[in-house]
Amino acid sequence: MKILLILAHPDPDSFNAAIARRCRDVLAATGHTVFFHDLCAEKFDPILPADEIPRAAQLPAAIQMHCDEIATADGIIIVHPNWWGQPPAILKGWIDRVIRPGVAYAFLEGDAGEGVPVGLLRATSALVFNTANTESTRERDVFKDPLETLWRNCIFGLCGVSEVFRRTFSIIVTSNERQRTAWLCEVEEIVQRYYPTELGREVGER
Amino acid sequence: MKILLILAHPDPDSFNAAIARRCRDVLAATGHTVFFHDLCAEKFDPILPADEIPRAAQLPAAIQMHCDEIATADGIIIVHPNWWGQPPAILKGWIDRVIRPGVAYAFLEGDAGEGVPVGLLRATSALVFNTANTESTRERDVFKDPLETLWRNCIFGLCGVSEVFRRTFSIIVTSNERQRTAWLCEVEEIVQRYYPTELGREVGER
Repeated sequence: MKILLILAHPDPDSFNAAIARRCRDVLAATGHTVFFHDLCAEKFDPILPADEIPRAAQLPAAIQMHCDEIATADGIIIVHPNWWGQPPAILKGWIDRVIRPGVAYAFLEGDAGEGVPVGLLRATSALVFNTANTESTRERDVFKDPLETLWRNCIFGLCGVSEVFRRTFSIIVTSNERQRTAWLCEVEEIVQRYYPTELGREVGER
Repeated sequence: MKILLILAHPDPDSFNAAIARRCRDVLAATGHTVFFHDLCAEKFDPILPADEIPRAAQLPAAIQMHCDEIATADGIIIVHPNWWGQPPAILKGWIDRVIRPGVAYAFLEGDAGEGVPVGLLRATSALVFNTANTESTRERDVFKDPLETLWRNCIFGLCGVSEVFRRTFSIIVTSNERQRTAWLCEVEEIVQRYYPTELGREVGER
């Protein structure tokens, strides 16, 4: 399968970076094709200019590449810290620029843009790995866990990705090596569950 | 009063820009001091680098100015479109960089960052004006209106701003001139309600 893997954390030594590396490694070792982007390392430009908003806009080559990748991906993995109940700005900008009309969703003919769009993404599942420094009960009761509806309903649901699995690892700031090791094993298990090895399948096809 | 006014829309001819201009004009005409930032026009850099995350980080001059302004503001007005249930990336980056520990919130002594912070902002009220192309019932029922909890609970509530008034104008894409004119009158009425004229007060103080 073709898996799109997006990391948004400015520190290459962060636990987020470790999660993304583990995803990439397990996918590559099991025969998947991985489109991996460390948005901060690549200095992704998150600003959607006004002339890029229309459906038929000419896109810069870098944005077109991101659009082509998400359009062909069979699965999507997003890794980011919970910053204010939202992704970091660099990932928000990737959403603003890449999850575009004509790529990820479309309005039906005769709709001026105010109606209900149809999802266009080919991927049938998406995994979202988050880190947080807020207790899960406080995140749910005080903050209403906005990342849950943002990814499940506002973004992937609208774009036709019906299955969304999300896992938040917390409390990161006080976690120890042993805890993080166990969490990375859990990441590997989740990735393998949703995107099983292609190697056996290839053998079976021969 | 000192009012911080933040606009995040890439098009200077947008209805968002018109809302911000109306806020600025009515505040200036009634004796308030307005700190106004059109983030896109100013090319605000939304990327929070890793070395800016620690509480005691040295801040670039532009970010320090934003921090000083929000720390001294008596009121805050935010204007932005609803993009994916979230602000545009440029505003998310302003949140990431300006709503900082030591400026907007602080952890109590002995807390490693995993606990419940106390709000530091001086402002007692904030207004959030949004535009949308989604019907309000669909925004609430399908998407769970994440902007409501993001601004009210995740951001302003955590930073000690207890009163948050939010108004979403929709459907923007099909609205006409008459509707927009009425909406701008509503903006003016809301601003005057929350931040009443300083002119009479000045006279009374003499």
